[in-house]
Amino acid sequence: MRLPRFLTPATVVRAHCDLPCGVYDPAQARIEAESIKAIDEKYQANTDPEFRTRALIIKEQRAELVKHHLWVLWTDYFKPNHFEKYPQLHGLFNEATKLAGGGPGGAKSSTDASTAEQLLAKIEEISKIFWETKQA
Amino acid sequence: MRLPRFLTPATVVRAHCDLPCGVYDPAQARIEAESIKAIDEKYQANTDPEFRTRALIIKEQRAELVKHHLWVLWTDYFKPNHFEKYPQLHGLFNEATKLAGGGPGGAKSSTDASTAEQLLAKIEEISKIFWETKQA
Amino acid sequence: MRLPRFLTPATVVRAHCDLPCGVYDPAQARIEAESIKAIDEKYQANTDPEFRTRALIIKEQRAELVKHHLWVLWTDYFKPNHFEKYPQLHGLFNEATKLAGGGPGGAKSSTDASTAEQLLAKIEEISKIFWETKQA
Amino acid sequence: MRLPRFLTPATVVRAHCDLPCGVYDPAQARIEAESIKAIDEKYQANTDPEFRTRALIIKEQRAELVKHHLWVLWTDYFKPNHFEKYPQLHGLFNEATKLAGGGPGGAKSSTDASTAEQLLAKIEEISKIFWETKQA
Amino acid sequence: MRLPRFLTPATVVRAHCDLPCGVYDPAQARIEAESIKAIDEKYQANTDPEFRTRALIIKEQRAELVKHHLWVLWTDYFKPNHFEKYPQLHGLFNEATKLAGGGPGGAKSSTDASTAEQLLAKIEEISKIFWETKQA
Amino acid sequence: MRLPRFLTPATVVRAHCDLPCGVYDPAQARIEAESIKAIDEKYQANTDPEFRTRALIIKEQRAELVKHHLWVLWTDYFKPNHFEKYPQLHGLFNEATKLAGGGPGGAKSSTDASTAEQLLAKIEEISKIFWETKQA
Repeated sequence: MRLPRFLTPATVVRAHCDLPCGVYDPAQARIEAESIKAIDEKYQANTDPEFRTRALIIKEQRAELVKHHLWVLWTDYFKPNHFEKYPQLHGLFNEATKLAGGGPGGAKSSTDASTAEQLLAKIEEISKIFWETKQA
Repeated sequence: MRLPRFLTPATVVRAHCDLPCGVYDPAQARIEAESIKAIDEKYQANTDPEFRTRALIIKEQRAELVKHHLWVLWTDYFKPNHFEKYPQLHGLFNEATKLAGGGPGGAKSSTDASTAEQLLAKIEEISKIFWETKQA
Repeated sequence: MRLPRFLTPATVVRAHCDLPCGVYDPAQARIEAESIKAIDEKYQANTDPEFRTRALIIKEQRAELVKHHLWVLWTDYFKPNHFEKYPQLHGLFNEATKLAGGGPGGAKSSTDASTAEQLLAKIEEISKIFWETKQA
Repeated sequence: MRLPRFLTPATVVRAHCDLPCGVYDPAQARIEAESIKAIDEKYQANTDPEFRTRALIIKEQRAELVKHHLWVLWTDYFKPNHFEKYPQLHGLFNEATKLAGGGPGGAKSSTDASTAEQLLAKIEEISKIFWETKQA
Repeated sequence: MRLPRFLTPATVVRAHCDLPCGVYDPAQARIEAESIKAIDEKYQANTDPEFRTRALIIKEQRAELVKHHLWVLWTDYFKPNHFEKYPQLHGLFNEATKLAGGGPGGAKSSTDASTAEQLLAKIEEISKIFWETKQA
Repeated sequence: MRLPRFLTPATVVRAHCDLPCGVYDPAQARIEAESIKAIDEKYQANTDPEFRTRALIIKEQRAELVKHHLWVLWTDYFKPNHFEKYPQLHGLFNEATKLAGGGPGGAKSSTDASTAEQLLAKIEEISKIFWETKQA
């Protein structure tokens, strides 16, 4: 079982750059996905065409950032032994990045907040595994 | 008094894009600053010239991201009433972004982790005010 | 009193990178803001939906550049003694970057050239102070 | 068996943007990897410190592009039925992007052209599968 | 006469970074231009306003990449002796990059696939000269 | 004869984005080139290896910006009639962007400020023609 995040020791460093510096945090992907959800909600509530065009422009960028942050975790943080222990991990990342993308059912091509919610749920699954491996 | 972060309601959304979507989180700046600190530590522990050059390349990027995330908070999240209530806020942001920069005493021009720690402390001060205003 | 720009010595270098190299010039922000104004004018004069979408895409980028160039001046060029001498400077930069942004009354969320004109006026105020400090 | 590339019909479009437009081509990753190999060779042949620093700066960018192009193929082009038919595909992409990265044995952290050659071989394996699926 | 590409020796390296590493390939510009053509076709076939806005956003990026890849070839690969031998080369590049741009008759400001086809034809002309110079 | 810049009417707008908005200004390229010159001077005056590495990282970026701003002028601003009137224009731009590049005698591969001065002189030649065409 994963400890809730507020119980992880305060000194835990999280890595994300490819020196690698060793600081990773799924929160980076989650914050962008929350942004997508908020944009979808604002989109649905506002029919002004200029606002809607701007919403689509910005959502495209945020979704790209979700994909990027997830890809970095998948390639840079997770190691062969993790993929052995969590055989579903490859699939999870592939599905999550597809959910952030422009294909059918992806957050780029949908303005329905429920798509962003599915993406957030998938990121939460990844996050759970991430923090388990940090505890190990 | 600010509630510790783990007690803030799970449904709080944090905004950061300039739609604006309303999702902000000082964690974005903090994660990059933690990366700078880790890079500095690895730099001091490794005298290989290729490694050190790569460390400087990557630190430059991370420090730029710290500045960017802080600037976004300063301009996009904080409103005139916040600056009235926290008259030190302008100075805090200016000092924090200078600490992430290339001038004397900045994290770009230093490879001493203590500079990154000063930066992290400044971000923590900003974060405290940020979460107070979210509670308000 | 600030000398008109054409009387400043030709050898004056203006700095903007965060080495720092010492070359700064508010013209960078101004040129992008002039672009926003021109885009707004073309937007109003052309109701073709494809043209208008492209105008909004490009305006978003230009406005982001205005913000970036102003942030760089605020953090990298201006020093504590400048903020003491010009106590309005923090507020000026915060207002100018908000005017370039996506909030109410910002150039991203408006296609009215008068918003861009307000932004240009604010940049001119900053520019005036900038050149005064260069003379000092 | 995959047909050699020069026999694929000239009208085949290859997709890579996440509209998605449907145009993908592993050549994008390969060209960047060839660049890494050439940089490594020039690095070994030139001990000038300024040249070597520039080589490391540029190799970092090229390696990041390799990772990006591969990630796009993995998420945007390949579909669940491909992963079923080629169960090694997840692993191949994960290894290839790690080979382009900054960890042990990665092209960012090595200036030995043999690392780039391993990366090129891995991209060739992916490319083979890619063109097989295009024929299907 | 230029040999068809499949007959060029497999060991030919193509350069594109400005170390320079010496690896260039007009395929980079062509792939992006093919993407523009595919986007135009999808745009014409789909009247959904959200899809169309996304198509314009992405086409803008792809067209910018075409321009960039062509500019790199023109400045970094081609040398004075090439411009002497092919006096039409300056004009070809200028026309090709204009065809990828936002002016009248450019691929950014048109959603007609025939514009992208003109761009592809121009890139093919450049490509032909490129491979001739590589043979020389 | 070109009027000195301070006599050009204050309402002249200068264009640079590829809407196109019609606002162009060679000052954008010049400011970056001035930065390169200042970096070279600081590089020569400071033998600290960390400082020198940072200088090379930043110079690479500034030189890339010079190239980009010049390419934009060449493709987006100048029209066929300009190239007829100024037959040297293609060559000027090609030489100027090569001077900003990484080849022999380019500002990326040299830390001698005299290279940056040659680049500045070439930009000044372009600027002269630019302002003549604006007067026309």
